[in-house]
Amino acid sequence: MNVKDMARAMKHDAPALAASSIEMRNDALAHIASAIESNAEKIFAANQEDLALADENGVSAAVKKRLKFDEGKMKDVISGIQMLMTLDDPIHQVQLDRELDKGLELKRVTVPIGVIGVIFEARPDALVQISTLCLKSGNCAILKGGKETAHTNKVLFDTIYQAAIDSGLPRHCLVQVSAHNEIDELLTCEGDVDLLIPRGSNAFVQYIMNHTKIPVMGHADGVCSIYIDEYADMKKIIPLVIDAKTQYTAACNAVETVLVNRKVAKDILPMLKEAFDEAHVKMHGTHEVNEIIPVEIMEDFHKEYLDLEVSLKCVADVKEAVDHINQYGSHHTDAIITENQENADYFLDRVDSAGVYVNASTRFADGFRYGFGAEVGISTSKIHARGPVGLDGLVTYKYKLYGHGQIVSDYASGKKQFHFKDLD
Amino acid sequence: MNVKDMARAMKHDAPALAASSIEMRNDALAHIASAIESNAEKIFAANQEDLALADENGVSAAVKKRLKFDEGKMKDVISGIQMLMTLDDPIHQVQLDRELDKGLELKRVTVPIGVIGVIFEARPDALVQISTLCLKSGNCAILKGGKETAHTNKVLFDTIYQAAIDSGLPRHCLVQVSAHNEIDELLTCEGDVDLLIPRGSNAFVQYIMNHTKIPVMGHADGVCSIYIDEYADMKKIIPLVIDAKTQYTAACNAVETVLVNRKVAKDILPMLKEAFDEAHVKMHGTHEVNEIIPVEIMEDFHKEYLDLEVSLKCVADVKEAVDHINQYGSHHTDAIITENQENADYFLDRVDSAGVYVNASTRFADGFRYGFGAEVGISTSKIHARGPVGLDGLVTYKYKLYGHGQIVSDYASGKKQFHFKDLD
Repeated sequence: MNVKDMARAMKHDAPALAASSIEMRNDALAHIASAIESNAEKIFAANQEDLALADENGVSAAVKKRLKFDEGKMKDVISGIQMLMTLDDPIHQVQLDRELDKGLELKRVTVPIGVIGVIFEARPDALVQISTLCLKSGNCAILKGGKETAHTNKVLFDTIYQAAIDSGLPRHCLVQVSAHNEIDELLTCEGDVDLLIPRGSNAFVQYIMNHTKIPVMGHADGVCSIYIDEYADMKKIIPLVIDAKTQYTAACNAVETVLVNRKVAKDILPMLKEAFDEAHVKMHGTHEVNEIIPVEIMEDFHKEYLDLEVSLKCVADVKEAVDHINQYGSHHTDAIITENQENADYFLDRVDSAGVYVNASTRFADGFRYGFGAEVGISTSKIHARGPVGLDGLVTYKYKLYGHGQIVSDYASGKKQFHFKDLD
Repeated sequence: MNVKDMARAMKHDAPALAASSIEMRNDALAHIASAIESNAEKIFAANQEDLALADENGVSAAVKKRLKFDEGKMKDVISGIQMLMTLDDPIHQVQLDRELDKGLELKRVTVPIGVIGVIFEARPDALVQISTLCLKSGNCAILKGGKETAHTNKVLFDTIYQAAIDSGLPRHCLVQVSAHNEIDELLTCEGDVDLLIPRGSNAFVQYIMNHTKIPVMGHADGVCSIYIDEYADMKKIIPLVIDAKTQYTAACNAVETVLVNRKVAKDILPMLKEAFDEAHVKMHGTHEVNEIIPVEIMEDFHKEYLDLEVSLKCVADVKEAVDHINQYGSHHTDAIITENQENADYFLDRVDSAGVYVNASTRFADGFRYGFGAEVGISTSKIHARGPVGLDGLVTYKYKLYGHGQIVSDYASGKKQFHFKDLD
């Protein structure tokens, strides 16, 4: 079957998965966890093939670390699935129950989104997390992982798929595509695929967004900022900024821009310079910053480095910091360092980002760290799910109306009146 | 100012409106209501100009009825605003409050979407409803109404805008554009406009969707179906079908396709023929239907007539009805007529539409009839708001994280552990 036919088949099976009970879906998760454990040797052997190929192809040590699927990673994914099983059913939840008139009852219930296509990086644990999140939320999923983990993904996917089917889930609940050109075919499946979640580079996500009519959840860039207020606690500044910049530079929630209140710039910039030098972070900044500490002059604050580089700028106050972030940031995650409640509230209320933090590192923007168990991605969209997308972000709702033959004509003519009574 | 500059100015003012208190926004609504009342004569006079022009241009009676803004319509919009004032604040609602670790608190709070562009038909009451819904939900709005109500809209908008500003709302909270070519300019304002809500013909909505990178909320077509089950209560069938087809044929929630269970088709189709003939509804149908009652032969079930025409087809059971609706319908609103609980549940759970009804007319799909006060439109999107879009559909959320200097490094290294405690 080609991708289009698979998507059509999934669309046809999606209502059955949407109607499935939480018991059946949790049972499938339990089967998946034990099947992965039983097939451990086969999975590790496939992973060895991927690692050998990575060596041959001169893949970097950082990427190889992510490719690797060993006992430790297996333990993590199994406990991830077990945690997912304990979470409440995200679908079949009644959000509104209202009697419109006698014998005419309206319910708003959560339902899965339907068929979701997820394109993710070369990490075997990502395949397990994404497929189990989709099944728990009643969604059919088309999975495309990175080519560097092709062998591991094949064995892992076959294991997960067989366990899901054996538990009674519909035949087309999951599918894996492996060829890169199949991504372009997937992009044309509007009507059958309800949502795409691409994970990867800015350029890749932009490409997806510009070449499909299917809604796309996620974010292209992550230009996160930290504003150091004049009321910042000096002791908190360096640990926060260094963690946000260096703890994992390739992450979308790593900080790219540090804004410093002008009134305290002469004290703070030299402190930052010392810490950045020690951490081998290259500093870019405005002419004003350069008068206090030596930096490479720059003016483009849209820049996402994803590396040991940072942009520095002075601002007059929290108001200018908010304006800067709303204009140059990417509405992902931004933080203020301050002990002043008023300035903190101003920042939290007015920065238009999915995450707004006071005195915490931007690196906390993550589904696991928010207690969601896992995430399929982080969304900067304001339409539907925003921030780390866990189970809640994978569902929508439908309205169910239960009548006894009521017609609109009677209400339009005034013969009958609605009474809108919310039921418990 | 051109549209692009206005959108930029609104984007800048949006955070201030997002941070405004419910008292200030309700106060603005109260001012708007009394300003409309005070300016009644001016508004009626402008409306007379529009009506005179409509006469000159030979506008149809149905459209003229919608153009008209008289004492009755004014009473309706005023009571609509008063009702809106009584509703809870849709923003600043805490949806999640969780302690991640000691001194590290995460809140998910509802926030406005930001800047919304609404393009709507020639109905002065629509201008009042949309602008007040947007202000109540803390959104800035760019309004473009139908040209046939240009005079009325100008006076109404000036009245509403002045009252909003006098109440302290930000200067760029509302703007009206009137030239048709400004719509194309609006479509290029991605980055400043967060959402577009077009109301109008299928072709118009499709045009908007295909010519902008801004998310679009709404629906292009409304191919709604009613399935008459073998367990239908005979007395309910004709009133429901006739109401759904004829109560307002131009509406998106009017029924276009009636599916009849084959086992009872010989009894029901002749009944339907008699009722449709009486209501002057032209019948299209399959060869199988034509063997029982005379119909025009057709096979294209994607058809939206928006007129006194209907498609008829026989199906084997509720399963085939669901498959037909999911394939040919537009995921808007679909109904089953049955007294069988199992078939009703099967239909409600598996039809993938924003509204799924049992024994009620599809014409109930409407914000007022759902008790939302008013609506800005009806959405068939599964990403974010679905069905009639009232206040809830005009907000999203952001995550606020309150720390005391916490860094990710401590959690990544295992030095500290999250404890994820949901707070009341």
